[in-house]
Order: sequence, then C-alpha cells, then structure tokens
Amino acid sequence: MELDPKTDLTFTRHIKAPRAVLWDCWTTPKHLMAFFVPKPHSVSDCEIDLRPGGRFNTTFKVDGAEIRNEGVFLEVVQDRRLVFTDAYTEGWKPAVEPFMTAIIEFEDHPEGGTLYTATARHRIPEARQSHEEMGFYDGWSIVAGQLEEYAQALQANA
Amino acid sequence: MELDPKTDLTFTRHIKAPRAVLWDCWTTPKHLMAFFVPKPHSVSDCEIDLRPGGRFNTTFKVDGAEIRNEGVFLEVVQDRRLVFTDAYTEGWKPAVEPFMTAIIEFEDHPEGGTLYTATARHRIPEARQSHEEMGFYDGWSIVAGQLEEYAQALQANA
Repeated sequence: MELDPKTDLTFTRHIKAPRAVLWDCWTTPKHLMAFFVPKPHSVSDCEIDLRPGGRFNTTFKVDGAEIRNEGVFLEVVQDRRLVFTDAYTEGWKPAVEPFMTAIIEFEDHPEGGTLYTATARHRIPEARQSHEEMGFYDGWSIVAGQLEEYAQALQANA
Repeated sequence: MELDPKTDLTFTRHIKAPRAVLWDCWTTPKHLMAFFVPKPHSVSDCEIDLRPGGRFNTTFKVDGAEIRNEGVFLEVVQDRRLVFTDAYTEGWKPAVEPFMTAIIEFEDHPEGGTLYTATARHRIPEARQSHEEMGFYDGWSIVAGQLEEYAQALQANA
C-alpha cells in the first residue's frame, strides 16, 4: 500500500503477543472495550458484525459525556488485516462528512510477537492535520500499550 | 436495506436471463464493456479485481472524449450482490469528493429470469438530484436492456 504523507497518518509498534490473539482482541466486543480508548476514558458499548459492510459501532465515555461512533468494516482478512471507516453506516449508507478510514495490519515480527501497524487515511490534508492535532500518535501509542497488556493477560489466562 | 428517498435512487427490472449469467456479465471486463454504457457511447478500458477493496476502473468514450472512472468494490457476493463506489481507489485511498455507491442485486424472479435492482446511494440530497438529472432512470433502463440482450446472446452461444 502506497501511503500519501499529505493525507495519511501511520503508527507502527512491536507488540509482544501473537497475531491471532491481537485479532481476537480487535474483533470481539468484550475484548475491544478493554483497550480501545486511552484510560480513564472507556467504551460503554460496542457492536461488531465482522464482514465487509457489517456494522462497527462504539460508544465512548469521555469525561462524563457519551460519544457515539458509527461505521462499517470494509475488509476483514483474519489475523492479518482489518479495515473500517466512518464513511458508511450499515447498508452502505454514505456518511455526509466521512472523516477517516483505518487500516490495522498484523504481521509476524522476526523477533517474535507482532509487527502492528495502524494507518488512518483521510480525504483531505485538513482532516489529517486535525487528526494529528487531536493526538493521533499519543492516542494510538497508549492504545497499543493497553492492547499489549490486555492480550498478554488474555493469553496467560487461556 | 432501508432506502432513504432523499439521497437514494433505485431502479428495478425483470431481466430474462439467469442470475449467474448476469453476474458473469457484470464481473468480466470483456462482457461488462459490451453493455455498461448506453450506445453509441462505449467502454474502451475496464479493470476488475473482484474483492472488497479491489479496483474497478473504467474508461468511457463519450462523443470522442475519454472519461476515466476509478473506484473499488466494497462487497462481492457471487450471483447475488455487487457493491462498488468512487469513494475509494485501490489501497483504500479516500476520494476527495465521493459521488455515489452502487448496489447491484440479483434475485430469482418468480416467473423465471432475474429480478435486477440497481441502487445508487449518495452522501447528500444535491448529489442524488444531480444524478437524477444526469439521466439515472433512462441510463440504467437502457443499460439493463443492453445487459439483457448481451446475456441472452452469451447464453445462446455457451
């Protein structure tokens, strides 16, 4: 995939847990709710219909407010690649102002564990800029840390 | 699928050819080029990578001018349902100004042949209106007629 620095943001991390466990964390509501937003914020609801066009809806609790996010999955390649966006809701209804499309990639890391890449693609440079200013790098870094910790605990209890 | 009359356009036709033949027509470049635009306009190039996120690019020849269209498939359910859009190009690169998402549905008709439905979903009412004024209903009607004729000939020569 060829990235466009004007409109894309990308983040890579070596996570010490297997791809298959990270995939389960990303695609099971109960697991996703445990790592998906930086604490002390939380996810109070999560709906996943894991297929192209299936719903991916979440509700965040942020400083007492509830924020509802609606979207769909675009591509589902088990243990390897998950793509989702707010550009559609279920039934391929186009959103008026799509913000971003996220591509989460899981590869085996040569030293073990997973090379984890999260990419956000935007329509226009202003959206990329706004996403960076909202704290893309810090946010995804914290979330990757939470994911690693949760995945390791999940594996230890399996 | 719940339609929204403010932003969606939909067209239905009983086509006297089996679903599987119409599916082949829609997903094989050589066949698609034969029916996809109202004659005497034509399709001079067609690239199909039939999977979610795969390219669906065409070039139209209209009154001597060449018009290039780039998009991707969103959903591919063989013999039943094909969804594509200009909202992305290959690699999930978002388009700056997405125009529409098309959903082509093929169902068995109780009297034989196929109940064929083409739906175009738009982000905003103005895009729906503009698409209707560009001749959505006449255009899709002519194309459905060309598709039926081509599919019947294809079947006769099979």
